[in-house]
Amino acid sequence: MWGIIGTWEMVLEGLREGGQKLEESSHVFDAIESTVKTVEANELFTSVGLGGLPNEACELELDAAFMDGKTLSIGAVASIKGFLHPVSIARSLMDGPFNNFLVGEGAEKYALAQGFEQQEMVTETAKEKWLLHKEEVKKGLSPYLGHDTVCVVGLDKQHNMATCTSTSGLFYKKAGRVGDTPISGSGYYVDERIGGAAATGLGEDIMKGCVSFNIVQKMKDMSPQAACTEAVKELTELLIDRRTKAGDISVIAMNSDGDYGAATNIDVFPFAVMTEKVGLKLLTVNDKGEIKECLC
Amino acid sequence: MWGIIGTWEMVLEGLREGGQKLEESSHVFDAIESTVKTVEANELFTSVGLGGLPNEACELELDAAFMDGKTLSIGAVASIKGFLHPVSIARSLMDGPFNNFLVGEGAEKYALAQGFEQQEMVTETAKEKWLLHKEEVKKGLSPYLGHDTVCVVGLDKQHNMATCTSTSGLFYKKAGRVGDTPISGSGYYVDERIGGAAATGLGEDIMKGCVSFNIVQKMKDMSPQAACTEAVKELTELLIDRRTKAGDISVIAMNSDGDYGAATNIDVFPFAVMTEKVGLKLLTVNDKGEIKECLC
Repeated sequence: MWGIIGTWEMVLEGLREGGQKLEESSHVFDAIESTVKTVEANELFTSVGLGGLPNEACELELDAAFMDGKTLSIGAVASIKGFLHPVSIARSLMDGPFNNFLVGEGAEKYALAQGFEQQEMVTETAKEKWLLHKEEVKKGLSPYLGHDTVCVVGLDKQHNMATCTSTSGLFYKKAGRVGDTPISGSGYYVDERIGGAAATGLGEDIMKGCVSFNIVQKMKDMSPQAACTEAVKELTELLIDRRTKAGDISVIAMNSDGDYGAATNIDVFPFAVMTEKVGLKLLTVNDKGEIKECLC
Repeated sequence: MWGIIGTWEMVLEGLREGGQKLEESSHVFDAIESTVKTVEANELFTSVGLGGLPNEACELELDAAFMDGKTLSIGAVASIKGFLHPVSIARSLMDGPFNNFLVGEGAEKYALAQGFEQQEMVTETAKEKWLLHKEEVKKGLSPYLGHDTVCVVGLDKQHNMATCTSTSGLFYKKAGRVGDTPISGSGYYVDERIGGAAATGLGEDIMKGCVSFNIVQKMKDMSPQAACTEAVKELTELLIDRRTKAGDISVIAMNSDGDYGAATNIDVFPFAVMTEKVGLKLLTVNDKGEIKECLC
């Protein structure tokens, strides 16, 4: 059995490539990294990697993480500028027992020393959108709209599981702002004896409930779908109870049998999955838990 | 009922002040912030604030966090240089729904804009220790020895609960390295309907199991002491099973009744507590779960 699941429609092309790698017996690390790299390199996707939308200072600060479900090793970067593939830097940071999560300039120095090439990451289109948005914010529009993270959970034929994430975070965020994407337990978590989960949405709220860790714990006793549904419901209700409202929360999960699930508290959350059992599917889930297959 | 609990012997003086504030009906935010500020300002403590031990580049990069048990609001900074009280910057970041966790230069710009004063934080003594340690590392000594975070959980007379943390992280860490201290669920978590918990030790390993979130979930059904003991045992066993060894993990917790607990996987972990019920105590817990009162 093998399988891979990822967030948002933007993951589809990369996920197909990742799924094919798994079918051809690649290690899960290579399959999920390849999936996210495809999204990072596509400048049409404005919330991840190249072409991502800049922060308040018109800089593109990126966050990414990688977690190994066997050793529980984590590698993560946050607020890193000028690198095309933060997910690969995060993967390389899984090695060794110390210094696995690096931020800002320190992360950039590490990446350069490792041979990752620095490049301009703010595209002309992103600059234009930023200028337009700056004017809209002056007129009173909420600055923080987009925040779609690409998250992938994978299982390979050798029963290895892993997860990785990558994002440019909230559009027009403050310089140095970090969301849930590089934060274990919140943005992602995986234990290959159970399964893995990852989240996308308003990082500031996702961090208030460790939703990915919670889903993995629940998968000890229930299906990935039930675990996702319960965890999103619990955190959403908790946030509404304490803060009168809950930010966007959408999650994906896969267990060690290759069964998967997804849940959301927004109208429609698209996700893609490819497994030995079901093939490649682009699906949506809504806030009532209804899952539909997309014809696109 | 009111109470406050904190990590390591270094917290004692500040904890006494914080406890007195709680006795005089201060808000929990003020009591726990005051406790941690006393530790940050004391340059004799080499793992927190002024006099903290520098990173590999001889810079003092600090991490801190604050969490409100009522609204679940979080404020956090990581890898911030040149400020005496990172915990106060973290507290100020709890306001508002976005941009609550800032790192590096972005965090420094925010702090300056908020009126926090920048100052030299690397003391002469710290520089001397750094130089000495640099030579030891050249000779093959493990660079990463000290990592004591000050963590405090408090409960005030109005039943408000909160937690905060502050650290300079691993001595001789890589520039930009972030541990569990600013990471919700790992370094700290609090829900005032249940209780709060916080952790100190090897951040890289604590992040592999969301130990603070786990303790708070366990406190729904058991005492803080049982929750701490179980959570440390589970994470230590998991790490040994998957990685052959577990880094240092020590935790404290307090529930909404002011009952407390602590646990560790090291030989001796000192912690201090002051509550309406028990007064001020400096205690130790060992890896067998035995708690002793210190005469010091």
